[in-house]
Amino acid sequence: MTDWKTNISKSGEDPEVRGEKLEEVMEMEFSDAIWLVLKGEKPSENESEMFKTILSSSIDHGVGNPSTVSARTVQSGGNGMNTSVAAGILALGDKHGGAIEDCMKMIQSEKSAEEIVEEKLEKGETIPGIGHKIYKDEDPRASKMLEKAEELGIRGEFTEKICEIRDEFSERKVELVLNVDGAIAGIMSDLGWDHRLGKGIFIIARTPGLVAHVHEEMDEEDFRREDGEYLG
Amino acid sequence: MTDWKTNISKSGEDPEVRGEKLEEVMEMEFSDAIWLVLKGEKPSENESEMFKTILSSSIDHGVGNPSTVSARTVQSGGNGMNTSVAAGILALGDKHGGAIEDCMKMIQSEKSAEEIVEEKLEKGETIPGIGHKIYKDEDPRASKMLEKAEELGIRGEFTEKICEIRDEFSERKVELVLNVDGAIAGIMSDLGWDHRLGKGIFIIARTPGLVAHVHEEMDEEDFRREDGEYLG
Amino acid sequence: MTDWKTNISKSGEDPEVRGEKLEEVMEMEFSDAIWLVLKGEKPSENESEMFKTILSSSIDHGVGNPSTVSARTVQSGGNGMNTSVAAGILALGDKHGGAIEDCMKMIQSEKSAEEIVEEKLEKGETIPGIGHKIYKDEDPRASKMLEKAEELGIRGEFTEKICEIRDEFSERKVELVLNVDGAIAGIMSDLGWDHRLGKGIFIIARTPGLVAHVHEEMDEEDFRREDGEYLG
Amino acid sequence: MTDWKTNISKSGEDPEVRGEKLEEVMEMEFSDAIWLVLKGEKPSENESEMFKTILSSSIDHGVGNPSTVSARTVQSGGNGMNTSVAAGILALGDKHGGAIEDCMKMIQSEKSAEEIVEEKLEKGETIPGIGHKIYKDEDPRASKMLEKAEELGIRGEFTEKICEIRDEFSERKVELVLNVDGAIAGIMSDLGWDHRLGKGIFIIARTPGLVAHVHEEMDEEDFRREDGEYLG
Repeated sequence: MTDWKTNISKSGEDPEVRGEKLEEVMEMEFSDAIWLVLKGEKPSENESEMFKTILSSSIDHGVGNPSTVSARTVQSGGNGMNTSVAAGILALGDKHGGAIEDCMKMIQSEKSAEEIVEEKLEKGETIPGIGHKIYKDEDPRASKMLEKAEELGIRGEFTEKICEIRDEFSERKVELVLNVDGAIAGIMSDLGWDHRLGKGIFIIARTPGLVAHVHEEMDEEDFRREDGEYLG
Repeated sequence: MTDWKTNISKSGEDPEVRGEKLEEVMEMEFSDAIWLVLKGEKPSENESEMFKTILSSSIDHGVGNPSTVSARTVQSGGNGMNTSVAAGILALGDKHGGAIEDCMKMIQSEKSAEEIVEEKLEKGETIPGIGHKIYKDEDPRASKMLEKAEELGIRGEFTEKICEIRDEFSERKVELVLNVDGAIAGIMSDLGWDHRLGKGIFIIARTPGLVAHVHEEMDEEDFRREDGEYLG
Repeated sequence: MTDWKTNISKSGEDPEVRGEKLEEVMEMEFSDAIWLVLKGEKPSENESEMFKTILSSSIDHGVGNPSTVSARTVQSGGNGMNTSVAAGILALGDKHGGAIEDCMKMIQSEKSAEEIVEEKLEKGETIPGIGHKIYKDEDPRASKMLEKAEELGIRGEFTEKICEIRDEFSERKVELVLNVDGAIAGIMSDLGWDHRLGKGIFIIARTPGLVAHVHEEMDEEDFRREDGEYLG
Repeated sequence: MTDWKTNISKSGEDPEVRGEKLEEVMEMEFSDAIWLVLKGEKPSENESEMFKTILSSSIDHGVGNPSTVSARTVQSGGNGMNTSVAAGILALGDKHGGAIEDCMKMIQSEKSAEEIVEEKLEKGETIPGIGHKIYKDEDPRASKMLEKAEELGIRGEFTEKICEIRDEFSERKVELVLNVDGAIAGIMSDLGWDHRLGKGIFIIARTPGLVAHVHEEMDEEDFRREDGEYLG
């Protein structure tokens, strides 16, 4: 029989989250409460400042990506908010929304920047956190993120490592920028986060955007139909 | 053919959210960015203070409720973060996590408090936002929430209406408390929110808790099995 | 604590489904096994013949509808078969894939055909099971279905009622055909099925099509991007 | 822009599935229509007989496994059939319902039975398709399945390979049975199926069971609550 045990929270007469009374959690910034529920302790002032920037940076990113299309399409089929948002989150797989986690896992591994680049070049794989479709010289969101990490004294070995990876790659093959996912991955790692939470952080950050899209779709009359061609 | 149009955000070279440059959104508190993406404008200082309290109050609530069980069970079947969190959100239907939206809809209707109570009593239905399993005299989270709304000058006609509904009901049938969902519903309505976002707000607030539970479940070895009995 | 009890099946040393030994279920046509697990008894020969026709008729219906778009889009985001198929099923809400259940509920109600049409005309609502975008004189799938029901001696009061509804509506407003959903709804009702299984039957019938689409999508290289326009 | 193209089916005036007119598909056994939509051609008589056995064998398997718990829990939260069934399918991840696909992939690889066993023993991993909690001498469903494959002239090299794997493993470590997933994986491979459809076949087979469980849960009054313990 399943025996559910948790370190996370407690309902009932004296509700708690990670050892804090819920009434005190209600006084926290939402991003601090997120930090608390995921890491099990409150952030320092500088950690708090950095973390809110990371979350706010990913809140929404246009209408044509898979998660938005999936959420809005499912709403248009005649479904409620929870079903539609869940469909959007389902789309956040390995290829869409997965770069932060992949990059965290890569830089938290014991391999050196050089070994990682060598291996990726050999396998012909792209490197998560490096390169951008539009930005060729600099991803301004990444630069802003790194500047803030510098100011707050958070930038450390993992951010260095992803920058080294970019440099190694640029020397050997072609000049690429550090993108915003790479910057977040470096900083989150320097903040001591388990890479298995990388996708989770992105999901938390993007869910408000999905809710907004589903709400907007509710005012559309008909369900979404795409053009299709039968090749049979 | 589907022609996706949106007022919400824009990707590409100069990303924006609701008319704000993404670089400026990155400087906002996460709860303010959520307000922006959903309402289309920035909150005032007092609105901001109120909204973060509402979000933080719902971040997690123990391990035995349907959304947590569903998320953890799906993870235990051998699934990633996105699939598991989505399964948790799916559980947030009409009976679990739906009270805020139901209550907002009810108090935003044109019916008076008296008419609403009469109708509910006639149909033998419960009233969303009223009553609590444990708290018989006062739900301390609701009281704290209302106090803050009062201080911030936000408390208005909709909060009055839900309080009236509680009083009408208590007079006619049995003394019940205003619960935290009712307080949130009143305040969100006074803040000018569409009731169709009630469930969405709850989903946004609870997603971090679901991510935490899925992460905790990742360290369990086997998949969850429940005892079952075949009555056939 | 949850105490799972079921009349449906039993795992363990002597597995059973609805009182039948699993080894015997393995000898049944799949559509008969579906009937057994849902209705709790085996179908007669004629019921079996009718039911397989209903299931096979809905197996797939092109690439541009919401469920297919959602399933393929989620796969393209880098997800496995279960996550992608589930996203497709999520899209089967009230407006897409819901007509069979809505029609069954309508004709199983105590209202007469006349009352139903009057009510729908008053509210300006469409009638599930009636009308088709392309077929103006006759929906050939519906005709084939009804013919078979006639031959097998299954056609009864509920099929009559949906035909009456079509006639009433055609007299009062405009000539419409009985569509395939209406035919299935009438026949399933005459076969004694609970209307709350109408959507479930459609999900069972369409899941193979969704699996096929997800499999086809696996050979596409990149993830699906749609064009979008920011109106902000 | 997304340009949906498919070989699977066509809606509109003359609907088709894999080159067959829908009216003809309506005359097929449902399991034959499933074969058609997934493989792109009709099964032979013997293939048809084998395939229906495989599907019917997996239709349901008790109430306590993750997919059933997830589907019923989500329904109990106040959700419709599509949302609840999808939650059940989400649970069918790598550890629950994944053995057929894993086993197909393994035996369709170029490695010999000996190499596979050696590798698995070295890594300390279990072998999909081999071993059973209850059956120590023989899994009767596997035996029945293999017998039928033999009779129908379907048993071939892949079924041999999974049997060899079992023998190799039994010689080197401990006697284990070939279980029903291993038998299905061998036979499906001998029938020429892509291993990437292994999980899909299981999803198709189990969806009717999930629909039955969600329907049964609809008659329960309250939502499911589990006992939980806060260790914080």
